[in-house]
Amino acid sequence: MYISVVGASSCGEEIAAVAHELGREIASRGHILICGGLAGVMEAVCRGAKEAGGITVGILPDIDRSRANPWLTISIPTDIGHARNTLVALSGDALIAVSGGYGTLSEISFGLKLGKPVIGLHSWRPDPEGREDARVIEAAAPREAVDLAEKLTGSASGGKASRPY
Amino acid sequence: MYISVVGASSCGEEIAAVAHELGREIASRGHILICGGLAGVMEAVCRGAKEAGGITVGILPDIDRSRANPWLTISIPTDIGHARNTLVALSGDALIAVSGGYGTLSEISFGLKLGKPVIGLHSWRPDPEGREDARVIEAAAPREAVDLAEKLTGSASGGKASRPY
Amino acid sequence: MYISVVGASSCGEEIAAVAHELGREIASRGHILICGGLAGVMEAVCRGAKEAGGITVGILPDIDRSRANPWLTISIPTDIGHARNTLVALSGDALIAVSGGYGTLSEISFGLKLGKPVIGLHSWRPDPEGREDARVIEAAAPREAVDLAEKLTGSASGGKASRPY
Amino acid sequence: MYISVVGASSCGEEIAAVAHELGREIASRGHILICGGLAGVMEAVCRGAKEAGGITVGILPDIDRSRANPWLTISIPTDIGHARNTLVALSGDALIAVSGGYGTLSEISFGLKLGKPVIGLHSWRPDPEGREDARVIEAAAPREAVDLAEKLTGSASGGKASRPY
Repeated sequence: MYISVVGASSCGEEIAAVAHELGREIASRGHILICGGLAGVMEAVCRGAKEAGGITVGILPDIDRSRANPWLTISIPTDIGHARNTLVALSGDALIAVSGGYGTLSEISFGLKLGKPVIGLHSWRPDPEGREDARVIEAAAPREAVDLAEKLTGSASGGKASRPY
Repeated sequence: MYISVVGASSCGEEIAAVAHELGREIASRGHILICGGLAGVMEAVCRGAKEAGGITVGILPDIDRSRANPWLTISIPTDIGHARNTLVALSGDALIAVSGGYGTLSEISFGLKLGKPVIGLHSWRPDPEGREDARVIEAAAPREAVDLAEKLTGSASGGKASRPY
Repeated sequence: MYISVVGASSCGEEIAAVAHELGREIASRGHILICGGLAGVMEAVCRGAKEAGGITVGILPDIDRSRANPWLTISIPTDIGHARNTLVALSGDALIAVSGGYGTLSEISFGLKLGKPVIGLHSWRPDPEGREDARVIEAAAPREAVDLAEKLTGSASGGKASRPY
Repeated sequence: MYISVVGASSCGEEIAAVAHELGREIASRGHILICGGLAGVMEAVCRGAKEAGGITVGILPDIDRSRANPWLTISIPTDIGHARNTLVALSGDALIAVSGGYGTLSEISFGLKLGKPVIGLHSWRPDPEGREDARVIEAAAPREAVDLAEKLTGSASGGKASRPY
């Protein structure tokens, strides 16, 4: 299973610790970690996953690997800037958001638009006010976040994705 | 000035009327309208702009023009799916969101991330909770929305955009 | 009808003159000109089209409009770099290549891959050696190039494009 | 080192055998294989690499993994169609082209445009006719192709890539 973790490219120690623990949790259960490949939350979650022996993939906004964090098994330079956020959302069977700014909110939006489970850790809780059914599901801790990702992907999956623009 | 209008590809009559009036307002002031080129809010705003003699541009998610609404001066098939949302956000000097679902929220997020003015008409009000400074500015009606777009672009502009991922 | 003109962002006077004449020819027949929006061949063809009263569209690789040539009716900043070449190829009902380097060759390749007519003026003549059926059709002068674009689009068209990757 | 292998999504047995041997050669030397993730040459080269214990990455044009070949360590659905070809070219420190149609030619073009070594096995030999300096370097067999990729990347590398559109 692929899990995309989305969050900002800079963060405080507390959020970094949450991301690090999340990475360990994802990798220890054998899931592949997808992220945007940069610093901050992305780096912390990758470090956790690598320390637990996992596979980490960074989909970079840049034309080269110069800003890739050092904990990536695979890095993909795209040179498509913010548009790479859609690739991060598409590549996960589930998304877990850790805090984050507007870049993270765009990824959450794509995840929900695509019908994927989106779990939040201290992150955005966009209120759809009846416009949409899906919502971000809040988890109290990394372990619960991965539990939810596993459970909801199992129930949500099935069939080929369509293009519901 | 380019104004990007973002909203869902289907909508009720009330929202369509708001979008239609917004299109007339944008075109009558000589601005170029950018949108995602499909139905719903996108079609209504384009119809309003065309009726007022304006120029309308649709940046389509598809490989061809078969789903383009009939009120586009220029349509651009991209075949990049949801990733075209970033292009819609980039192309506007300001964004005006009319109601909308998660696709719209992704465009609002990109607009705010890019530091552009984002004005809302019955739309999302994502709460940054201290994570970010910028916010969606709510307008009561189309005329006020375009007033705000003009005023905030004037003050916000200056200098070349950078890549702040 | 949309005609995409592809060529390098710098060129000599002779090629610029060909591009300029081509722009006049496209616009005087009422076609919309699509290009990559930068200098060189792109600028020369846009200048010709604007002088003849036409509509010109530039699909830029950049995050902003700072490098857009001054002859564009509409400019679209994409921030997707070379990937915008696919959008230029997709947006034309036919492509006309004027000289050009490897960026141009990528656009020619996409045009042929998508089954669109591709006409060359002093441009690449990739030899498919039996691997593909389509080829670049050489024209002697701008007028003939647009004649061919009109004729071949008429015969080639029909039906919705598919995704033949 | 990352090596991108480009080729068509269907091919005859002879070309599949070349691709398969190429995959073994790449993986046995510890390089990471990047490709477009589909059938044909992409599948054959991935099978070879997997059999030799390597890591394979497929950057898919689609919105999901349903067309991914079964020999991928990592698959990335992008939903950006042909535009994903630029990502395949960007992700390799060197490119090796195996036969191929116009999609392959677009990847070769991007590789050369980006200044990367591009090695051909029974593939395109676009003639730059003085427009560009770089060329496809032909190899007689997979082993020689990987030798060249290693040698030319060593000499070509250095410094951060720029955006030379």
